[in-house]
Amino acid sequence: MSEVAPVSELAGRAAALDADDPLARFRELFVESPDVVSYLDGNSLGRPLRRTAEDVRVFAEEEWGGRLIRGWDERWLDEPLVLGDRLGGACLGAAAGQTVIADSTTVNLYKLIRAAVELAGPDRTEIVADTDNFPTDRYLVEGIGAERGLTVRWIDADPLTGVTTAQAAEAISERTAVVVLSHVAYRSGYIADARAITEFAHRAGALVVWDLCHSAGAVPVELDAWGADFAAGCTYKYLNGGPGSPAFAYVAARHHAALRQPVQGWLGRRDAFEMGPGYEPADGIRRFISGTPPIFAMLPLRGMLELVEEAGIAAIREKSIALTEFAIAAHGKLLEPLGVTLASPADAAVRGGHVTLEHPSFREVTQRLWGRGVIPDFRAPQGLRLGLSPLSTSFGETLRGIEAVRDELV
Amino acid sequence: MSEVAPVSELAGRAAALDADDPLARFRELFVESPDVVSYLDGNSLGRPLRRTAEDVRVFAEEEWGGRLIRGWDERWLDEPLVLGDRLGGACLGAAAGQTVIADSTTVNLYKLIRAAVELAGPDRTEIVADTDNFPTDRYLVEGIGAERGLTVRWIDADPLTGVTTAQAAEAISERTAVVVLSHVAYRSGYIADARAITEFAHRAGALVVWDLCHSAGAVPVELDAWGADFAAGCTYKYLNGGPGSPAFAYVAARHHAALRQPVQGWLGRRDAFEMGPGYEPADGIRRFISGTPPIFAMLPLRGMLELVEEAGIAAIREKSIALTEFAIAAHGKLLEPLGVTLASPADAAVRGGHVTLEHPSFREVTQRLWGRGVIPDFRAPQGLRLGLSPLSTSFGETLRGIEAVRDELV
Repeated sequence: MSEVAPVSELAGRAAALDADDPLARFRELFVESPDVVSYLDGNSLGRPLRRTAEDVRVFAEEEWGGRLIRGWDERWLDEPLVLGDRLGGACLGAAAGQTVIADSTTVNLYKLIRAAVELAGPDRTEIVADTDNFPTDRYLVEGIGAERGLTVRWIDADPLTGVTTAQAAEAISERTAVVVLSHVAYRSGYIADARAITEFAHRAGALVVWDLCHSAGAVPVELDAWGADFAAGCTYKYLNGGPGSPAFAYVAARHHAALRQPVQGWLGRRDAFEMGPGYEPADGIRRFISGTPPIFAMLPLRGMLELVEEAGIAAIREKSIALTEFAIAAHGKLLEPLGVTLASPADAAVRGGHVTLEHPSFREVTQRLWGRGVIPDFRAPQGLRLGLSPLSTSFGETLRGIEAVRDELV
Repeated sequence: MSEVAPVSELAGRAAALDADDPLARFRELFVESPDVVSYLDGNSLGRPLRRTAEDVRVFAEEEWGGRLIRGWDERWLDEPLVLGDRLGGACLGAAAGQTVIADSTTVNLYKLIRAAVELAGPDRTEIVADTDNFPTDRYLVEGIGAERGLTVRWIDADPLTGVTTAQAAEAISERTAVVVLSHVAYRSGYIADARAITEFAHRAGALVVWDLCHSAGAVPVELDAWGADFAAGCTYKYLNGGPGSPAFAYVAARHHAALRQPVQGWLGRRDAFEMGPGYEPADGIRRFISGTPPIFAMLPLRGMLELVEEAGIAAIREKSIALTEFAIAAHGKLLEPLGVTLASPADAAVRGGHVTLEHPSFREVTQRLWGRGVIPDFRAPQGLRLGLSPLSTSFGETLRGIEAVRDELV
């Protein structure tokens, strides 16, 4: 009699981890793609929920088509604040009244940085940013620096370690108006010590804008506890809002009264529907709103927030760590011997929800992987980024992806 | 034997107009609300298409969920330009390569006005705008004027006649950097002579930003023929994009090379995915893009553009004129005797797709009308605005609404 072939040690671990995963039940709530063997890019674009079409049907018939223009008074005018509060409570450590769903991350960061520069006053002549931040953040501070007459003081960040607190402390001074950093680095996944950096900036009289794109929904954020000033991020990664879904912005309550943002639109004005002369900002976080809020586009986020609330961000983070630990272990067994190096922190305590690996051939390898239904992301010049979205990714799927990378390298 | 009760003359005309309406077949493509007797606010929020849920299902399963991150390379990165071209061709008289779907009207106007001020150069110290323009436009020029050190020169527009060409000519001078006006006035529906005003502005060396919110999809626009510089507008009115759907922006090709817009985001940069240091604008209209384009939110517009292309903007305008002529005739019979006045142009040639009526009691009347499923819009202080969306509104529905207004007044 033939014996059953021995399961590889990694496959056995993946199976055991999946069997013990308390969040496993969430996976079946997401749409699966028939040609995708392993989706490892949930931190660029999260999968849709299966309920999306039905949610849209109900919305189209009952809200948009049913209530028509009455929907604005009945629900939609508050929707950016209601969903903002839910997101703030579930994922950002933000008490109610400080978070709003609006625009894109880029537009929100522009408005926040501009507002921060105004608040800091004309004696503060520098913006502190880092060379490894996401491109949009870098381009924005360049542009705002040029238009407002501030110098950008660049921290030369090591992609692997991100911006260290020591580097931030060295760069921040009494000349700093605002510090613009990512909480989780988009390439390495390094988690900055946001609390320490915020505290240091405040001691120097500076303000901080945190980009939370790679944190929200995967890595717990404690904006109120950090004493944060401003933050923004997207909802299409771990919050599964769909391609180009609306972003969020956070403004600490203590800044509301003095906050002036540059894109003065009708729905950020006090008594908007009086349509009167002269812009006067509305009270509270509503003054951050510019144009008509993207209600239809917030629908997938509505659905996803229910899942995040149910699972809880602590359990999501726990699974996220288990996924990245497993991916790194599989890398050690299968890819490191082939010359692949880890370009993310080895210590889970300072590593977010994704893992980046490096190899000179990864640009070409990524193309071949995509062709066979294994979908990581490529980040120039040679990074393969594995985004392991906790609610929709299994350990087995993670292993299948890493095995495929090995197959392409041998 | 009893005779059939004679149909009122207006009801007879409505029935005949509906019977002869070559666009009547489009009406059944839209979702109907069970409690709505007459929807007269299609110029605030167009009805959804019935196909919306099915379009979203296909999108969620095949594009978003099926192609996942590959969707960006395969379709979505070009989607804002592809849909922009279609909108430009179908509704705006804009040759390809000049129109983009992006952000909100407010954000687009902010970026366009800022770009125009830069292009105009530091010797031009005034922004010309009018007191009856939509609030967002007024608040934006105030804010931009203050931040860039320009004075706003206000044209005191008569709501009924809008900004006349003579008024514009008087206000525009060698000091004018940019003129910001609406093509169709949001209250009266007055159609400005965009070609003449643009020509006059150009002779004075000034640039013009046209707000097309109340034109797009109802009133033909000829941006290229006008020699227009910039334009923006929304897609949630006559283009039925859904509450808060993405807006559009137009930049004439001759301005592309010199255009610098202030919200320098990653997807407006040349070679965006190289993520390199330093912002360099992409070629063409793509440089107007800031953040990640709202692809999911463009879905209803995709579907609606098919209808607009099929119907043709000339036929849509023809029906729009017939609807407003009929509404004004019904007003003359039923409401004028009750003290209601017409606050829109009587001449269809200078009247857009909506009709505004005035009466001191209209604030309260609107509330009561909404309660009985008749849904016009109210515009302070005493305007009842009837937005007659050509593809989804019948003459019978229009009459039912006006009869209900009469019932509330007697």
